[in-house]
Amino acid sequence: MMESVSFPLTAGKLSKVLNASLVGNGEVSIERLSSLEDARSGSLAFFSNPKLRGHLNQLEAGVVVLTNRESVIKDSPITFLIVEEPKAAFAEIAKTLLPASPWKGISFEAKIHPSVRMGKGVSIGPGSIICENVTIGEGTIIYPSSYIGPDVVIGNHCEIHPFVTILCRVEMGNRVRVFSGAVIGSEGFGFLEGDSGFTEMPQIGGVTIEDDVRIGAKCTIDRSTIGNTFIGRGTKIDDQVHIGHNCRIGKNCILCAQVGLAGSSVLKDGVILGGQVGVAGHLTINENVICGGQTGVTRDLEANQKYFQCPATPLTEALRTYQISKKLPEMARKLKKLEEKLNG
Amino acid sequence: MMESVSFPLTAGKLSKVLNASLVGNGEVSIERLSSLEDARSGSLAFFSNPKLRGHLNQLEAGVVVLTNRESVIKDSPITFLIVEEPKAAFAEIAKTLLPASPWKGISFEAKIHPSVRMGKGVSIGPGSIICENVTIGEGTIIYPSSYIGPDVVIGNHCEIHPFVTILCRVEMGNRVRVFSGAVIGSEGFGFLEGDSGFTEMPQIGGVTIEDDVRIGAKCTIDRSTIGNTFIGRGTKIDDQVHIGHNCRIGKNCILCAQVGLAGSSVLKDGVILGGQVGVAGHLTINENVICGGQTGVTRDLEANQKYFQCPATPLTEALRTYQISKKLPEMARKLKKLEEKLNG
Amino acid sequence: MMESVSFPLTAGKLSKVLNASLVGNGEVSIERLSSLEDARSGSLAFFSNPKLRGHLNQLEAGVVVLTNRESVIKDSPITFLIVEEPKAAFAEIAKTLLPASPWKGISFEAKIHPSVRMGKGVSIGPGSIICENVTIGEGTIIYPSSYIGPDVVIGNHCEIHPFVTILCRVEMGNRVRVFSGAVIGSEGFGFLEGDSGFTEMPQIGGVTIEDDVRIGAKCTIDRSTIGNTFIGRGTKIDDQVHIGHNCRIGKNCILCAQVGLAGSSVLKDGVILGGQVGVAGHLTINENVICGGQTGVTRDLEANQKYFQCPATPLTEALRTYQISKKLPEMARKLKKLEEKLNG
Repeated sequence: MMESVSFPLTAGKLSKVLNASLVGNGEVSIERLSSLEDARSGSLAFFSNPKLRGHLNQLEAGVVVLTNRESVIKDSPITFLIVEEPKAAFAEIAKTLLPASPWKGISFEAKIHPSVRMGKGVSIGPGSIICENVTIGEGTIIYPSSYIGPDVVIGNHCEIHPFVTILCRVEMGNRVRVFSGAVIGSEGFGFLEGDSGFTEMPQIGGVTIEDDVRIGAKCTIDRSTIGNTFIGRGTKIDDQVHIGHNCRIGKNCILCAQVGLAGSSVLKDGVILGGQVGVAGHLTINENVICGGQTGVTRDLEANQKYFQCPATPLTEALRTYQISKKLPEMARKLKKLEEKLNG
Repeated sequence: MMESVSFPLTAGKLSKVLNASLVGNGEVSIERLSSLEDARSGSLAFFSNPKLRGHLNQLEAGVVVLTNRESVIKDSPITFLIVEEPKAAFAEIAKTLLPASPWKGISFEAKIHPSVRMGKGVSIGPGSIICENVTIGEGTIIYPSSYIGPDVVIGNHCEIHPFVTILCRVEMGNRVRVFSGAVIGSEGFGFLEGDSGFTEMPQIGGVTIEDDVRIGAKCTIDRSTIGNTFIGRGTKIDDQVHIGHNCRIGKNCILCAQVGLAGSSVLKDGVILGGQVGVAGHLTINENVICGGQTGVTRDLEANQKYFQCPATPLTEALRTYQISKKLPEMARKLKKLEEKLNG
Repeated sequence: MMESVSFPLTAGKLSKVLNASLVGNGEVSIERLSSLEDARSGSLAFFSNPKLRGHLNQLEAGVVVLTNRESVIKDSPITFLIVEEPKAAFAEIAKTLLPASPWKGISFEAKIHPSVRMGKGVSIGPGSIICENVTIGEGTIIYPSSYIGPDVVIGNHCEIHPFVTILCRVEMGNRVRVFSGAVIGSEGFGFLEGDSGFTEMPQIGGVTIEDDVRIGAKCTIDRSTIGNTFIGRGTKIDDQVHIGHNCRIGKNCILCAQVGLAGSSVLKDGVILGGQVGVAGHLTINENVICGGQTGVTRDLEANQKYFQCPATPLTEALRTYQISKKLPEMARKLKKLEEKLNG
C-alpha cells in the first residue's frame, strides 16, 4: 500500500512517495488528478496510450505527467514523473483519495436476526435486513437498505451496496463487491409444460461466488435448479448483466454491461464478453474467447478465438463477409449482365 | 399435492410416496437431489433427455433415477423408480423441499395506510410501504422493503419479493409472483416535441396483470398513456425484461431475459421470445410465434412461425442466407473470373 | 397552465377551457379520456395520426374528438373540439388529471444527516436516507426508500422515485426526474490487468445531469474515472439504459429502453437511439443521428444520418443489402450455372 497523499502537494514530494524520477520543475504544485485531455496547470495526469501523444505535446506549463522513460519530452514546459507503470501508479494515488464509506459500525436501525454470525469490524447500515443463519466475515460493509436472505454466507472484506438483494443459499468468498440493485439467488427460469400452461420448476439450488468477484449494479444472478450457479475467482461483471440458473463462469472473466447468459451456459477461464452479448443455454465458451459487443452465441466456441455478430462468427470471417456484403447490389447487377450476355 | 418428503429416505419409501414401480435395491438411501451429471451415491436424479444417456450408463451403485419404463437398464447397479413423467415427479419432490418464506404475519415495521384492505393470512415484511386504498388478497406475501403505491389491487396468494415497486393503477390477479427489483406501473416513455425540446406526455393509464403471471427480477412494465398495459394469464417473464406502455401480451407467453418491447406492441397467446429479443412499437406478433435470441422484430409476424435475426426473418431463410453469406468471398472471386473470361 | 378539469363535464364546457371551436352537440357528457381505438360514448379522444382515420369514421354518438379543422367530418354523430395541436391539448387535460404525489412534507421516518441543506417545500418519504453534505433544491420530492449518498447536489422541482440510488459526487439540475430503481454514480467498469488478474481502477469522478433530464426505471449511469460523466439538458432516457463511465451526452437526446453506452462514448445534441442500441467505447455519434433498434455502433457516425444493424450501416444501404441478401441462394445457383456453361 502506498502512503496516502492529499492535495496540494509538489511534484517533488510526489516523486518521493512514488519512488519516481523527476524531469522538470519539482516545485510545481499538484492540485487535482485529471485525464490527459483535460489536464491544465495544477493537474496530474498519466500517459500510456500512444494515441494520445498529441495531447501530451500540447500540455502547458504547470502540468505533471506520470509516464515511462521513453515518453519523456526534452525541453518541455511540463514536469515528468518517470515510473515503470504509469497507469498503475496513477491508480494507487487515486485509491488513497477515495472517500471512506460513510457507514461504520452496526446501525441500531438495521434488522439483524439473533442467529446471525459476524466477524470483527463488520458494518451494517440502517434499514438493511439480515435473516436467520446468515454468516458475515470480518471487515465486510453492508450499506443501508440491503436484504440478505436466510443461510447466506458472505466472506471477509466484502462490500454490499444499497438495495442489493441476496437470497437463500448464496455463498460468496472474500473481497466480493456487489453494487446497488443487484439481485443474487433469485429463482431460475425453468418450467414444466402441461395442458393448462406452464408451472414453475422448483429451484432448490444456490449460487457460489468466489473471491475477488465484482458484480455490477442491477445484475441478476439466478440460483440453480439443483446444485449451484458458479462464478470463479477474479471475474468482473459490469452493470445490468443477467446470469441464468446453473451457469458456470470461470476465473478472471470480463462480462461487459447488459450481457445475458441463458441457463446452464459454461464460460471457461479468461473469457471476455463485450456489451450486450447474448449466450444461448447449455453451451460452452472455451478459454480466453473474446466476443465483440452484441455477439449472439448459438454454439460452443473454440478457445483463444475472437467472435462477432449473431450467430457468433470468427471475427475476421465476420468482417470480411460484412465488407463483401456491401458489394451485393453491384454483384447482382454484374451477374445479371453476364447472364444476358451468355443467354441473350 | 404430494406428501412432503425429507432426507434421508429409502428408495422403497419414496416409491410408495410417488406410487412408482421400483427396479433395483429398495434399501438404497437417498440423501439429496442431483442433476444426472452430478449424481453420485446417495443422489436422486431424473432421466428424460435422451442426450444424457451417456451419463445414465455411467452412474455408480447407490444412485436412484426417476424415469419412465423404456429407459430402465437391465442389471444396472443403480435403482430405478418408474413413473410416467419423471421430470414432473422430480419437481413435486423438489417443491416439498423448498423452504417456507421467513416472513409470516404483518410486521409492526411495515408502513400500512389505514385505508388498505386485506384478506386473511396476508404477510407483510418490515420496511414495506403500502399506500392509500390498496387491496391485498388472502394469502399474499409481501416481502420486506417493497413499495405498493395508491389504488393498487393485488389478488390472492401472490408473492411480492424485496425491493419491488408497484405504482398507481396496477391491478393483478391471483398467484402472481413478482421478483426482486421489478418496477410495475412506472411512467411510459412518450413525449410531445416542441421548439424548445421534448415535454412528457402524461401517462394516466395503468397495468393489468392476469392470474398466474410470473415477473422476473428487475423487470420494468410501464403504465399506459390511457387504458392499461396488459399481460395475459399464465405468461412467464424472465429477469430484466422491459415492457413499454400500452403493450398487450396474451396468455401463456414466454419472455426470456432482457427482452424489450417498445410501446403498444401486441403479442398474441403462446408467443415465445428468446433472450434479448427486441420488438419495435405498434406491431403484432401472432399466436405461437417463436423468436430466437436477439431477434429484432420490425414488422407484424405470422402465427405459428419461427423467426431469427434483425430484421426478423423466417428461421429457415435466415439460416440458409447465413450459410451462403459465408461463401460470398468465393462468389465474388468466381464472378470476377467469369467477367474476365467473357470480357477479356 | 390550463385550468384543472374534472369529469363528468360537457363538451361545451371543455371547449371554453381549451378555447376550442365546437362542431356538434355541446351537451354531450365527457366521462373519461380514451385512445381513439377504445373510444365509446362518454369518451374524449384526440385525432392527429392519419393512419387512424378508419377509427375516426366508425365512432358512435356521444364521443368527443379533439382535432384540427381539416379533420372534422360533416354530419358526423360525434362531437368535435377544434384546436391547432390536438395531441398537446389532450396532454394538457391529462396532466390536470394526474394524481398528486401521496408524499408531502418531510417524514419523521426519513434519515437525514444534520448537514443536509434543503430549499422550501421539499418532500422526503419514509425510509429514504440522505447522507452528509447533500443539497436539495426547493420543491423537490424524494419518494420513500431512496438513498442519496454524500455530497450529492439535487436541483429544484426534481422527482426521485422509490428505490433510487444516487451516489457520491452526483450533481443534477432542475426538474430532473429519476424513476424507480435507477442507480446514478455507481463505480465505472475500469481495470488494471496484472499477473494475477484484474484490479479495479479507482473511479474518483462524478456525474453531472443538466436541467429537464428524465432517467427511466432501472437505469445505471456510472461515475467517471476522473472528471464527470455528463448528460445534457432535456435529454430523455427510457428504462434499463446503461451509460458507462466518462460518457458525454448532449442536449435533447432520446435514448430508448435497454440502450447501452460503453465508457467514454460521446453523443452530440439531438441524437436518437432506438431500443437495445449498443455503442462501443470512445466513439462520437454526431448531431441528430438516428439509430434504429439494436444497432451496434463500432465507429464514429456522421451527423444527420440514419443507421441500422451491427456494425452500424447507413439505413438505406442496410435495407438494400438485406433485401438482396435474400436472393443469395438464387444468385449462387445462377453463378454455378454460368460457370458450367462457360467452363463445361
